[in-house]
Amino acid sequence: MNLQSYLSEKRRLIDEALEAYLPAEHTFPEIICRAMRYSVLNGGKRVRPILVLAGCEAVGGNSEIALPAACAIEFIHTYSLIHDDLPAMDNDDFRRGKPTSHKVFGEAMAILAGDALLTLAFETLTRDAKGLPADLLLRVVHRIASAAGVGGMIAGQALDLSCEGKEIAPETLEFMHRHKTGALIEASVVAGGTIGRGTDEQIESLSLYGQKIGLAFQITDDILDFDGGEKKATYPGIYGLEKSKALAVQAVDGAVEALRGFDERADPLRAIARFIAEREA
Amino acid sequence: MNLQSYLSEKRRLIDEALEAYLPAEHTFPEIICRAMRYSVLNGGKRVRPILVLAGCEAVGGNSEIALPAACAIEFIHTYSLIHDDLPAMDNDDFRRGKPTSHKVFGEAMAILAGDALLTLAFETLTRDAKGLPADLLLRVVHRIASAAGVGGMIAGQALDLSCEGKEIAPETLEFMHRHKTGALIEASVVAGGTIGRGTDEQIESLSLYGQKIGLAFQITDDILDFDGGEKKATYPGIYGLEKSKALAVQAVDGAVEALRGFDERADPLRAIARFIAEREA
Repeated sequence: MNLQSYLSEKRRLIDEALEAYLPAEHTFPEIICRAMRYSVLNGGKRVRPILVLAGCEAVGGNSEIALPAACAIEFIHTYSLIHDDLPAMDNDDFRRGKPTSHKVFGEAMAILAGDALLTLAFETLTRDAKGLPADLLLRVVHRIASAAGVGGMIAGQALDLSCEGKEIAPETLEFMHRHKTGALIEASVVAGGTIGRGTDEQIESLSLYGQKIGLAFQITDDILDFDGGEKKATYPGIYGLEKSKALAVQAVDGAVEALRGFDERADPLRAIARFIAEREA
Repeated sequence: MNLQSYLSEKRRLIDEALEAYLPAEHTFPEIICRAMRYSVLNGGKRVRPILVLAGCEAVGGNSEIALPAACAIEFIHTYSLIHDDLPAMDNDDFRRGKPTSHKVFGEAMAILAGDALLTLAFETLTRDAKGLPADLLLRVVHRIASAAGVGGMIAGQALDLSCEGKEIAPETLEFMHRHKTGALIEASVVAGGTIGRGTDEQIESLSLYGQKIGLAFQITDDILDFDGGEKKATYPGIYGLEKSKALAVQAVDGAVEALRGFDERADPLRAIARFIAEREA
């Protein structure tokens, strides 16, 4: 399979759906709608929503039905970036070469835009079941909310905040990443598999796959950011560069291994796993 | 009926349920769990969750089943207060005589605690259906998300921010309040009525009731805050004190009138409507 054409095809579908679920630009009050659209429609790579669609296809589902969940997860991801960039948090002025939300719309509106996107995720998830049984959809909503909440992503962010500048044990680093980035990535594949009506065993395999690529993703991020400096709370900072690269490869192998029971419909997931550790930005 | 004993009985049930749905105090990472608990467990009046339970009872439902929705709405209300109090927003140091979240836990953790409570609302709603049909529960989740989102509460907050210090037309003031405080109050009664399996006609009446008490609530708030000054974006600022009081009474009468088709099981809702315009704090 050609991963690049798979990714760009899915990205197109997702971008269309995101646009459709966002409030139109001139909806009153305009400024909050513009702020929401600014941060979502920014040419993102759409890793998480693509994982939702690919997870759905891996179990034989029609990924069209998974589009609302895919968009919901991208809204959650985007809100977390807007809030992370705030002056009180990481205080970042740029993201992907563009001024961050609070630089464009002011701090108060950026906080609200994040809140609005988090809420829109749940509006989107529950707006149109697309023929899915309601109990299955409820389970998906619960899974995504848990992954985004204080037992998931927010636990990682809180820990990150409270560890800033401190020496950090390898177990704490792992807990932090497993929650801060891993939980939502894992929930993406699992949500896709659930919507595609995967068996319990398949969902378990997808969950393991998601954990492994989440880890690979984070280690690779740390490696790409590594400047030889002494940043403690990173993989190269704790393990050194060579060992970190080996850990990333090991995580990718684990992800591919988790899919051993799946047929060729899981090829996109396999290719995405390899791609994650090989990417250069 | 004795409204005070009704309110304190419901408040007790709600406080117990809130405590049960919040993460325990020593859950890792502790600081975020403490921040969430600090703002929720603060002796609040629990107006919105009581409206959920009373709305459920008004249509003959067992309000026990509505407790998760009641708590979810209180979590949403609390997150909105935490974020409203932030330095970038209203910059309030105290709420109900206690230091605000960001004064106690710092700004970053207060932002996260708000995010965590908003997410917890949806975790709580979807955790335990308590025997409710899944499609009905999905409708409730959607209704609450819409009321809290950019078509509801957040529209009001965004408008409030962008009108700060400006002269404001009466229609704009009404739009702002109908969204900022009205939407969630209306959704509370409607969610309760839906969970209690009210008919479409009953739900419509509850919706109208909710709109009217939301308005009465806001006008009374403005009257209680009124210091004779020139604050433009308030009812006494636009209409003067006497006319504002008359508008509040008219809204309460409209709320009671909306319930004319209901039997004595709606008495708590009727008493709450009258209480809102008569309260003194």
